[in-house]
Amino acid sequence: MEKLFSKIAIVGAGAIGCYYGARLARAGGDVRFLIRSDLARVRERGLRVKTPDEEIVLPGVHAAGTPEEIGPCDLVLVALKTTANAALGRLLGPLVHGRTTIVTLQNGLGSDEELARLFGAERVAGGLCFIGVNRVAPGEIVCLTPGSVSFGEFQRPAGGRVRALADMFSRAGVRTIVSDNLAELRWKKLVWNVPFNGLAIAAGGVTTDVLTGDEELLAAARALMLEIVAAARAVTGCEIPPQFVEKQIEVTKAMGPYKPSSLIDFLEGREVEVESIWGEPLRRARAAGVDAPRLAMLYALVRRLAAR
Amino acid sequence: MEKLFSKIAIVGAGAIGCYYGARLARAGGDVRFLIRSDLARVRERGLRVKTPDEEIVLPGVHAAGTPEEIGPCDLVLVALKTTANAALGRLLGPLVHGRTTIVTLQNGLGSDEELARLFGAERVAGGLCFIGVNRVAPGEIVCLTPGSVSFGEFQRPAGGRVRALADMFSRAGVRTIVSDNLAELRWKKLVWNVPFNGLAIAAGGVTTDVLTGDEELLAAARALMLEIVAAARAVTGCEIPPQFVEKQIEVTKAMGPYKPSSLIDFLEGREVEVESIWGEPLRRARAAGVDAPRLAMLYALVRRLAAR
Repeated sequence: MEKLFSKIAIVGAGAIGCYYGARLARAGGDVRFLIRSDLARVRERGLRVKTPDEEIVLPGVHAAGTPEEIGPCDLVLVALKTTANAALGRLLGPLVHGRTTIVTLQNGLGSDEELARLFGAERVAGGLCFIGVNRVAPGEIVCLTPGSVSFGEFQRPAGGRVRALADMFSRAGVRTIVSDNLAELRWKKLVWNVPFNGLAIAAGGVTTDVLTGDEELLAAARALMLEIVAAARAVTGCEIPPQFVEKQIEVTKAMGPYKPSSLIDFLEGREVEVESIWGEPLRRARAAGVDAPRLAMLYALVRRLAAR
Repeated sequence: MEKLFSKIAIVGAGAIGCYYGARLARAGGDVRFLIRSDLARVRERGLRVKTPDEEIVLPGVHAAGTPEEIGPCDLVLVALKTTANAALGRLLGPLVHGRTTIVTLQNGLGSDEELARLFGAERVAGGLCFIGVNRVAPGEIVCLTPGSVSFGEFQRPAGGRVRALADMFSRAGVRTIVSDNLAELRWKKLVWNVPFNGLAIAAGGVTTDVLTGDEELLAAARALMLEIVAAARAVTGCEIPPQFVEKQIEVTKAMGPYKPSSLIDFLEGREVEVESIWGEPLRRARAAGVDAPRLAMLYALVRRLAAR
């Protein structure tokens, strides 16, 4: 099965793209990195990835500044921020041949559909990355929490393709999970991302321990989580149990003073993934007739705060 | 009737206290100002109040640093910020005799009840100040919008006392309104203060035109206003019509880039009246069984933002 993916493109050289790309390359994959701002440095010095267990040093990697230099691939892993999704057509077009699989590792909602619209739904799968990883310099990545990736097909149950994908990641040292319901995976991740990324920004740039340590902020977070659960039910039919919400709160309490990724983007003046994390879930909830008052207000606030 | 109020104490020498106190003193009232931080300057230089029509200059006013220096009065006008309400007992005790009337000019909810608890409900009335006024220096006040004051008795219809009070203010050049329902006045003022003071802070310190010019923020403001209308109905039985909400939005749009008073406090690092404007209305809504999800989240955010 693995020959399905003999030539692999990684689109986007942030923390996620470099981390998984480096692991796949080190495991013997033919990996091509499509890189914008860090291109010269990666060409010159390659990639360095520190994990809790080891340091992966790849002095030379295939790094390209345009998709034409890479050409058609069997697998395209999309690791752009969703704020760059307007470029998907231009960046991925030259990478796609008749049977290319496109897997988005992006956050939130909307990327699957956008890729399906551009390249056909049958090509599209998704991987949700539960990982703590940062780009500390161009081509230099530090992973504190390797976590796992959950894979699923877009609008279909998992089949041989997504299992082969998960096998390939597993052999590269990544813990993987295969799911029959990508939409449920996405909404479950939103149950955490919507409140904790959002309130961390709106409460003035605070770490998650501030949110869980304040009775009213924690109540707002929990109520937001339940709005996402209700939206997920109405939009996808999936039933996220209340215990899942409580478990997420417990896990977050145990994390201590954690900075959610959107908060880091916000504090460092980078674009925040406002539409994929708050805007698109809100629009889908509304379209399904679900009232999500806190999500609507949080979206309005974060959108304004991130636009400054 | 005016002899009811022959000796008047003004507690608090911010913009509101100085403005109304100066008007009453200029009109011949025996007005004593209880002042903390600005005491030396006011004793030395008196008060200057600029209005759109005139400048009121009072070179010498009765200014005291302790309530004991003032002694019992017929009328006590409370113009402290509600964040200082823990001092009400200590500050007002020496000012009160057997028939002293206490009128709070403070914002939001809670002050009437606190004064009633301390000094007896029969003494307490309230005045809601619809005014644009700023303290630009110690004892120096600029009023851009004189507006009006609406008076009402605490938990009773208006009677002779509150009419005499309004007459006295009218003769001092203040437009006055007498209402039979102080609670309704307070909730109507909250219909504006809760969303516009709150979202101005939570959206990053923005003027009201930003709130009314952003579709999602305006929707959040309108929804917050309707939560206050519902809470007012459940808590007090009063029915604030939907046209009142729309009128407030229209008036706010016409105001242009206005900074709500709580935003000014917030931006200048002063205490924000979090509990009287958001906390107490939320607690009363909850006690009356009203779900106010946006108010709850806004309270949580503003409380945190203001605590920094």
